[in-house]
Amino acid sequence: MIAHVPSLEALIHELGKLPGVGPKTAQRLGYFILKSKEEYVNALRQCLAEVKTRIHECPLCYSYTESTALCHFCADPKRDDEILCVVEDPSGITRVENSGVFKGRYHVLQGVISPLDGISPKDLKIQPLIERIEQQRGDPSGKSIKEVILALDADLEGDTTVLYLSQMLRRMEVAVTRIAHGVPLGGDLDYVDFRTLGRAIENRIQV
Amino acid sequence: MIAHVPSLEALIHELGKLPGVGPKTAQRLGYFILKSKEEYVNALRQCLAEVKTRIHECPLCYSYTESTALCHFCADPKRDDEILCVVEDPSGITRVENSGVFKGRYHVLQGVISPLDGISPKDLKIQPLIERIEQQRGDPSGKSIKEVILALDADLEGDTTVLYLSQMLRRMEVAVTRIAHGVPLGGDLDYVDFRTLGRAIENRIQV
Repeated sequence: MIAHVPSLEALIHELGKLPGVGPKTAQRLGYFILKSKEEYVNALRQCLAEVKTRIHECPLCYSYTESTALCHFCADPKRDDEILCVVEDPSGITRVENSGVFKGRYHVLQGVISPLDGISPKDLKIQPLIERIEQQRGDPSGKSIKEVILALDADLEGDTTVLYLSQMLRRMEVAVTRIAHGVPLGGDLDYVDFRTLGRAIENRIQV
Repeated sequence: MIAHVPSLEALIHELGKLPGVGPKTAQRLGYFILKSKEEYVNALRQCLAEVKTRIHECPLCYSYTESTALCHFCADPKRDDEILCVVEDPSGITRVENSGVFKGRYHVLQGVISPLDGISPKDLKIQPLIERIEQQRGDPSGKSIKEVILALDADLEGDTTVLYLSQMLRRMEVAVTRIAHGVPLGGDLDYVDFRTLGRAIENRIQV
């Protein structure tokens, strides 16, 4: 309580709970908001309220949507039903979409297997994924899923989840693939860590 | 509009207007808020509203206060009336207080002279500063101000403001000082820029 302005201190305290916002950044943001126009603060408050009231889960892919039925990607008739991309959370969809190379459907796991955090397969949307694949194959009017791309992080939890999903999906007659790991585009070999470089060498491709 | 969730996109757009928050950070904060508990979002909204309604200017030092009369620092009877610290904005008071070495009064200029941004001396609280010094000297029950410390940034605008204020205050029988510039504590000479080092050599002190 250095500034002795309780409402400003309270705002700075709440802003400090945001990810990547330390005490100094929280203070800077707090003073910025205090100095900013009434309209901006009202717009921000309105957006905060709407995000919590309007958005819910898509019943098919478990991403976020404001629609009363399926989300944008599940409802789009132009997308390829035969290929499904599995992501950890809805922001993963945004990242895959930004790449511009994927035109299939999505499935959000809502997490990854992490025994240390107490997250087991049953806490994730894995059972709905299996049911979705089975249901689509059983539907004579639709196309069955031929490939499942696992677009998960290249860390311990991601690797564990990939291993688990590949075993679960093996008996379902779908190809299971994982996004490639290697040297980033524009990456200088001098600055790539040895594990990434090792993986890039193992996964080398014919030119 | 990659995520196709309008209220989330709107929130990310508003968050992106905050200082130091780029598109990626705004997206991260937006998803964090969407996933966070209702109570947190409500607390944040409440703080945003209160900051804009409860806080106003202190009529003496022009800092922020929630008090109906003088702010915490102007009202505190224990502080030294004879020494006044001039800062650019209220966050400057917090920084000076954190240093723990100043026990006098404050005066907030609410900006610095910046011809490029169209900010001239009359846009700042310079006239109230002069009146405050004169009034305090004329008051037989109080103590007159003996020293004015200018705690302004060490950039072009700060230097201009220091020059202007020192000329204005010269004829008022107060000592005008400026905070020292030099090598930061714990600073390695290898990483200090040449202008700072030059200033540190010019302002060297006897040991």
